[in-house]
Amino acid sequence: VFTQEEVTSHRSLEDGVWVTYRGGVYDITEFVAVHPGGDKILLAAGGALEPFWSLYAVHNQEHVLEILSEYKVGELSAEDLKKQRSVQTADPYSSDPVRHPGLRVNSLKPFNAEPPSEILSDSYITPSAIFFKRNHLPVPRVDPGSYRLQVEGLPGGALALTLEDLKTKFPKHTVTATLQCAGNRRSEMNEVKQVKGLNWGIAAISNATWGGAKLRDVLLAAGYRPEAVSEDGDVLLAYEMNGEDLPADHGYPLRVVVPGTVGARNVKWVGRITVSAEESGSHWQQNDYKGFSPGTDWDTVDYKSAPAIQELPVQSAITSPADGAAVEGSSQEVTVRGYAWSGGGREVVRVDVSLDGGKTWQVARLEGGQDQAPPPPGRAWAWKLWELQAPLPPGAQELEIVCKAVDSSYNVQPDSVLPIWNLRGVLSNAWHRVRVKVR
Amino acid sequence: VFTQEEVTSHRSLEDGVWVTYRGGVYDITEFVAVHPGGDKILLAAGGALEPFWSLYAVHNQEHVLEILSEYKVGELSAEDLKKQRSVQTADPYSSDPVRHPGLRVNSLKPFNAEPPSEILSDSYITPSAIFFKRNHLPVPRVDPGSYRLQVEGLPGGALALTLEDLKTKFPKHTVTATLQCAGNRRSEMNEVKQVKGLNWGIAAISNATWGGAKLRDVLLAAGYRPEAVSEDGDVLLAYEMNGEDLPADHGYPLRVVVPGTVGARNVKWVGRITVSAEESGSHWQQNDYKGFSPGTDWDTVDYKSAPAIQELPVQSAITSPADGAAVEGSSQEVTVRGYAWSGGGREVVRVDVSLDGGKTWQVARLEGGQDQAPPPPGRAWAWKLWELQAPLPPGAQELEIVCKAVDSSYNVQPDSVLPIWNLRGVLSNAWHRVRVKVR
Repeated sequence: VFTQEEVTSHRSLEDGVWVTYRGGVYDITEFVAVHPGGDKILLAAGGALEPFWSLYAVHNQEHVLEILSEYKVGELSAEDLKKQRSVQTADPYSSDPVRHPGLRVNSLKPFNAEPPSEILSDSYITPSAIFFKRNHLPVPRVDPGSYRLQVEGLPGGALALTLEDLKTKFPKHTVTATLQCAGNRRSEMNEVKQVKGLNWGIAAISNATWGGAKLRDVLLAAGYRPEAVSEDGDVLLAYEMNGEDLPADHGYPLRVVVPGTVGARNVKWVGRITVSAEESGSHWQQNDYKGFSPGTDWDTVDYKSAPAIQELPVQSAITSPADGAAVEGSSQEVTVRGYAWSGGGREVVRVDVSLDGGKTWQVARLEGGQDQAPPPPGRAWAWKLWELQAPLPPGAQELEIVCKAVDSSYNVQPDSVLPIWNLRGVLSNAWHRVRVKVR
Repeated sequence: VFTQEEVTSHRSLEDGVWVTYRGGVYDITEFVAVHPGGDKILLAAGGALEPFWSLYAVHNQEHVLEILSEYKVGELSAEDLKKQRSVQTADPYSSDPVRHPGLRVNSLKPFNAEPPSEILSDSYITPSAIFFKRNHLPVPRVDPGSYRLQVEGLPGGALALTLEDLKTKFPKHTVTATLQCAGNRRSEMNEVKQVKGLNWGIAAISNATWGGAKLRDVLLAAGYRPEAVSEDGDVLLAYEMNGEDLPADHGYPLRVVVPGTVGARNVKWVGRITVSAEESGSHWQQNDYKGFSPGTDWDTVDYKSAPAIQELPVQSAITSPADGAAVEGSSQEVTVRGYAWSGGGREVVRVDVSLDGGKTWQVARLEGGQDQAPPPPGRAWAWKLWELQAPLPPGAQELEIVCKAVDSSYNVQPDSVLPIWNLRGVLSNAWHRVRVKVR
């Protein structure tokens, strides 16, 4: 039995790092070096884990408790435990915005949710309320008046820009760009072998029109020469989504939109931009969001051996009919709809659809969005919706509908999931399959 | 029976287009509009087809004779036929260069050949003599002294540059770039269903160091502003290959090297460059080198519906052991080697190798070329060679070795050939498979 005072005296690697959890005392000194979240863990040293685990809800998993139990050294004194419990921990998620009840929730705290896939392709522009939500933490509430964007690593020294500066000193540009989570369609990887991460369906992807200042314009104003800053990427410091202020869930007051890259690089609530010749050393750049061979497991993974996911590969999925649905045999025709997108500004040029599990293929009609001018070469940032109306195969009682897309570099989707399976469950882009009954 | 004079009087669409072939007379007026080679066919109007078919050897196919036979209107008079035959037709291929006897020849006239695949990966830089050869016609013999490169569509009017101008007025740049024929690995498509085109194995791909003037430098000298002409593409007007004058088979005196694009865009013996906002209307850009759905056949193909192949998708193949070879069981180990490459400057970041037909995978060691600096992001133009040394599975009598590559956009190769099959047999990049016996 230890007193709180004894626990509190262990707050560094030199003195040892002790924490408490539900009345247990744990010496986690040796664990600090292997903590996936890095030395942030030291913030909890000498005290209770509960407030931090409430904030970083990723810890609420059985295997985390198993790891912790290995480090148990004793119990906290009953008196100190009682004191600890009397401190009411406020729920850090209590100020999260209200969300649409139609969303399919993958985790509540932090909030991660996708739209119902059947309605995803009903609108070329995804309404902000149903645009997929991806959060690692509570949604920050940022005061727009005191907000400053710090820009560092500039020829003329650092810049601090107010929201007003961004809105008035630079022309507003709009870009229609699709964002996709690296973990979109992870559930299909989970079906073949368990991976780590949220169990996304096919709808961790959405399309919006973003408005804001060009990062290029800000860098030019900061002293960069025009030749040094390519405009091809269409990178935005976005303060608008679909014509309105950015919603809190999508980064209010400011997010970066880096068209053609994985959602993770489209940082929300951005506070600081550092121009650097070095790749960011952050956890999300170095130790996560990387792809590995299906033969790589948690014992052999070497994060340094793979590049960070930036551009995503070609993707498509069937949004309608839903898997397990029934289609009317009497109509003698089936309508198949979905989305298709590719990273790096590569345009989707064809979607093949099969009604027989991939034996024969028909070409779907692509829809690039009404009123959308054709994108310049290499700058096709938005998805295409697609549709195929095809006769029902005579006598068919069941259809196995499959889709696969081709982009302007003639990249194609892989046939099957297992050979692209990876321990993080990212980059899931095998042919999408649904089975439907003919009624 | 017609006289030569009567045939010769039919030399236009108005008067009808007549030709002779082996003593037959043919009225091909209606065929002119659908001739795959365009109105070049009118050059033969009023005369014999033989000299042209000797030049354009693609006509030496049974189905071409079948098409011709439909247009027969009579016979040439015996006397005129005798005269015609007395005209000796010189072989237009007689001045083609001497080639290395080790090449695997796909067609002699025009000359198309690939290196033996087993030696392809023995050298990071492919020696020019065994670099794959791809010709549509006899090899032009260009006099370097009178050679002029015409550059048109320029702000300051047309330019005519001598070879000396290109070598002395612009700095020489070198780029190591892999070229791949769109039809590489076409033979694997032929195995599942017949396609049109040369039956390439896995070696219609090679890697060389090209030296020449940057197209960008030429365009800047012609009055373009630096912002208008990106340097990211590293496009060369190359007069050197592997440190020597370009060989005749590879475009002497000048070829364009457009790194990251399909071989067809790396035009040899280039005579004229036109800067234009419009896509080239040429046969090779509009009516060939395009990808289609496996469901598209020659009755339904609409060339306008697909974009021209520019950047190629990710590719890899096993060069050793060869398909059907035997490996020594006593060594208890197998060494698998091959190449991997992707278009658009995307770097190959991983090659997975399977010894069991794709059920389990191991990661190969990549070799980027000795003395090669790492390429800048998005400008990885050269292939990687790779090698895996792996224990032989205990008791294995046969191995089905498979490889697949991943590029920096995390594009992957498709699992199988049939779903990417297309009537032209291009873009064949499914997992490569070889079967070997364990001895």
